[in-house]
Amino acid sequence: MSSSLGRPLTVLIQGTGLIGTSVGLALSSAGWTVHLRDPNADALDQAHSLGAGSKDAVAADAVDLVVVAAPPAVTSDVVTASLDEFSRAVVTDVASLKEHILRQVQDHPDSERFIGGHPLAGRELSGPTGARSDLFEGRPWVITPNAGQDVAQEVVEHLINTVRADKIVMSAKKHDESVAVTSHLPQIMASATAARLMTLDSEALSLSGQGLRDVTRIAGSDPDLWGQIIEGNAQALDALLGEVIDDLTRLRADLHDPAADASTVATDLVRKGQTGQARIPGKHGSSAQRYVSVSVVIPDEPGRLAALFDAVGLLGVNIEDVSLEHSPGQPVGLATVFVIPASVDTLAQGLVDSGWVVYR
Amino acid sequence: MSSSLGRPLTVLIQGTGLIGTSVGLALSSAGWTVHLRDPNADALDQAHSLGAGSKDAVAADAVDLVVVAAPPAVTSDVVTASLDEFSRAVVTDVASLKEHILRQVQDHPDSERFIGGHPLAGRELSGPTGARSDLFEGRPWVITPNAGQDVAQEVVEHLINTVRADKIVMSAKKHDESVAVTSHLPQIMASATAARLMTLDSEALSLSGQGLRDVTRIAGSDPDLWGQIIEGNAQALDALLGEVIDDLTRLRADLHDPAADASTVATDLVRKGQTGQARIPGKHGSSAQRYVSVSVVIPDEPGRLAALFDAVGLLGVNIEDVSLEHSPGQPVGLATVFVIPASVDTLAQGLVDSGWVVYR
Repeated sequence: MSSSLGRPLTVLIQGTGLIGTSVGLALSSAGWTVHLRDPNADALDQAHSLGAGSKDAVAADAVDLVVVAAPPAVTSDVVTASLDEFSRAVVTDVASLKEHILRQVQDHPDSERFIGGHPLAGRELSGPTGARSDLFEGRPWVITPNAGQDVAQEVVEHLINTVRADKIVMSAKKHDESVAVTSHLPQIMASATAARLMTLDSEALSLSGQGLRDVTRIAGSDPDLWGQIIEGNAQALDALLGEVIDDLTRLRADLHDPAADASTVATDLVRKGQTGQARIPGKHGSSAQRYVSVSVVIPDEPGRLAALFDAVGLLGVNIEDVSLEHSPGQPVGLATVFVIPASVDTLAQGLVDSGWVVYR
Repeated sequence: MSSSLGRPLTVLIQGTGLIGTSVGLALSSAGWTVHLRDPNADALDQAHSLGAGSKDAVAADAVDLVVVAAPPAVTSDVVTASLDEFSRAVVTDVASLKEHILRQVQDHPDSERFIGGHPLAGRELSGPTGARSDLFEGRPWVITPNAGQDVAQEVVEHLINTVRADKIVMSAKKHDESVAVTSHLPQIMASATAARLMTLDSEALSLSGQGLRDVTRIAGSDPDLWGQIIEGNAQALDALLGEVIDDLTRLRADLHDPAADASTVATDLVRKGQTGQARIPGKHGSSAQRYVSVSVVIPDEPGRLAALFDAVGLLGVNIEDVSLEHSPGQPVGLATVFVIPASVDTLAQGLVDSGWVVYR
C-alpha cells in the first residue's frame, strides 16, 4: 500500500452527514476518486450534488481507503462490514470515542487494516448541507494506531494531510481520557447548570447575564447523541465526576458550617479554575493574556457594525477576536474587539478620530 | 424628598471603582451635582479626571443621595457610616448580594433611608479606567425596598432612570436566590470544570475546542472577589449545589452500573439542560431559536473581516450576533454571522455574489 502514497487514492465514504460530506468535498477537490454511500437516499443525493463524490457502485478491490462516518452507535458494525467487503482497503472512522470501537473491532481477522480516527471539527450544525471542504483545515485529527500498523497508518495520514488537518497520534485510551476533560465533562457541567433554569421564574431569568450564556451555550446540544457519548466514555468520566462532586461537596459543607472560613474553599476553587483556564491553548482561550480589548458603542441598526469593521480595516489592524454585547431591548450595543497589544493605540485613537465612542 | 424628583440631585459616590465611576459619569452628564470619595487617592484622581465628579468636600445636609460603590466586604460599614453622616440623604449600594447587607443595616435607627441596589452591569475589567457613562443603559438594576420606603424608593428610581437602566424591584431574598442561579452557580461550575485542566498534559489540552472555551471563560474571574460572593450567598447556593451534586451522583452511579441504561440518565440530563438553556431571554441566549447563521471563510489578515462586514452593510442586513472561529496556527478563519430569518437569503446570496465563500 505504501506505493499508493504519491498519488490521489480511491476512497469510499460510508455516511454522508456533516463529517462524511466534508471529507468528500475536501478529497474530491484534491483530485481523489471519492465514492459515497448512505442508507438515507436524501442525504446521499445532497452530498453528491454538493460535489462530495460519486453515488456509483465501486469495485471492492479498487478501494484504497474506507472512511466510516456513520452515527456512533453503528460505527463498529460498519467498520467490520467494510473490512469484510473491501479486502485490500484501509478502514478508518471518525467517531468521537475510540476505545469502545477498537474493542469491538479487535477480534476481526483483518483488524490490522483498521485505524481509529477522530477529527475535532464538529459544528453546531449537522447533515450534508452543513458540510465544508475546509472543515478540517488546521484542526486536530486524532488517530489511534497500534504497534505494527505502519502501512495502514501511512494511508490514513495521507488522508489527514490531504484535508489539511493537524495529525495527532495517541492511544485510544489517551484520546478518550483527554476528550472526557476537554469535551464531555464541559457538556455535563453546562447541562447541569442549565437544568437549574427549567423551573426558574421569568423575573429571576431577567437577571441572566453573559456569564450564564457562555457557560450554558453547549447545553443546547442534541440529548440523544450526547447520551451515547457520555455512556460510551463512562470510565474516564467516572474519575472526573468524582473530582467535581468532591469539590462541590467540600464547598457545600463549608458553606453550611458557620465556623469554617468558607471563603477559603470557594476562593481556592475559583483560583484552581483560573489556573486551569489559563492553560487552554489557542486564540480564544488565551485572549485575556495575549490580546487587549477595545470596546466600541454601536447603534443597533443595519450597517453600523459594518462601518466599525470598515474603520478598523482602514487602520490596518487585524482583529483577533470580537464579541457583541447586547441586552434585551437595548438600543445600543457594545462591540469588544481584541487585538495584539502593539495595535491597540492605533486602533483606539483611529476610531476616536473617526467619531466612534471607544472604551479601553 | 419627593419634591426633589423633578430636578437633578446632589449625590455623593463612595468608591470610585468601575461601577462608582460609571455612575458618576452618567449622572454628571445628566447635570447632577456629583461628589466623589475613595480612600485610594489614585482611583479618586482618575475618576475625577475622567469627569465623574468633584473631589471637593460636600456639606452633609446638601446631599440628597449617597451611592455606596465600595468592595462587598465593607459595603455595610460604609452604608451605616453614610446614614450617620448624611442625615437627610437616601443611601443605596451596588453590591452583588443584598440580604446580607440588609441584615447588617436593619438595626440602624435610620435604616428606612437605605435601599439596597444591584446594577447588573459588571465588566471583565475593573477600576475607574474601565468606567463608561453608558454602562447601565438598558441593563437591569435591581432594587430591594421594604414596605413603607416609598419616598426613598422614588429617589433611587430617579437615579436608575437617569442612568437609563431598567429598574427591577424584588425582595432581597428573591434577588439573592435569583443571582445564585444566574450568576454564582455558573461561576462555580465554570471554575470546577476549569480546575480539571490544572494537571492535564499539553497533548490532551491540544484537543480543547470551543465548547470548553465557552464553559470556562468566566473561570478567569477574580478568586478573592468570588470567594466573598459565594460565601455571602451560602443559603441560596446550598440548595442549588445539592441539586447539581444529586444530578452528577446519579449520572456517575448509572455509568458505574453495567446493567443500567446509563444513556437514559445522561440523555435526560442533557435534555433538561437543553430545556433550561432555551429559557434564557435576550439576544445571545435565544440566537439558536430566533436567528439563522451564515458562515463565511475569512483569511486571517488585516482588513478581511472589515471587508466582510462592509459587504454585509452594503446589503442592508443587520447583524444580530457574530462569532469568530479560529484554531491555533490555522491560516483561515470562519466568521459566523447571525441574522433574522428574513435576511438570510439576501445575505448569503449577496456575499456569494461578491466573491465570499459562504456556508449556510
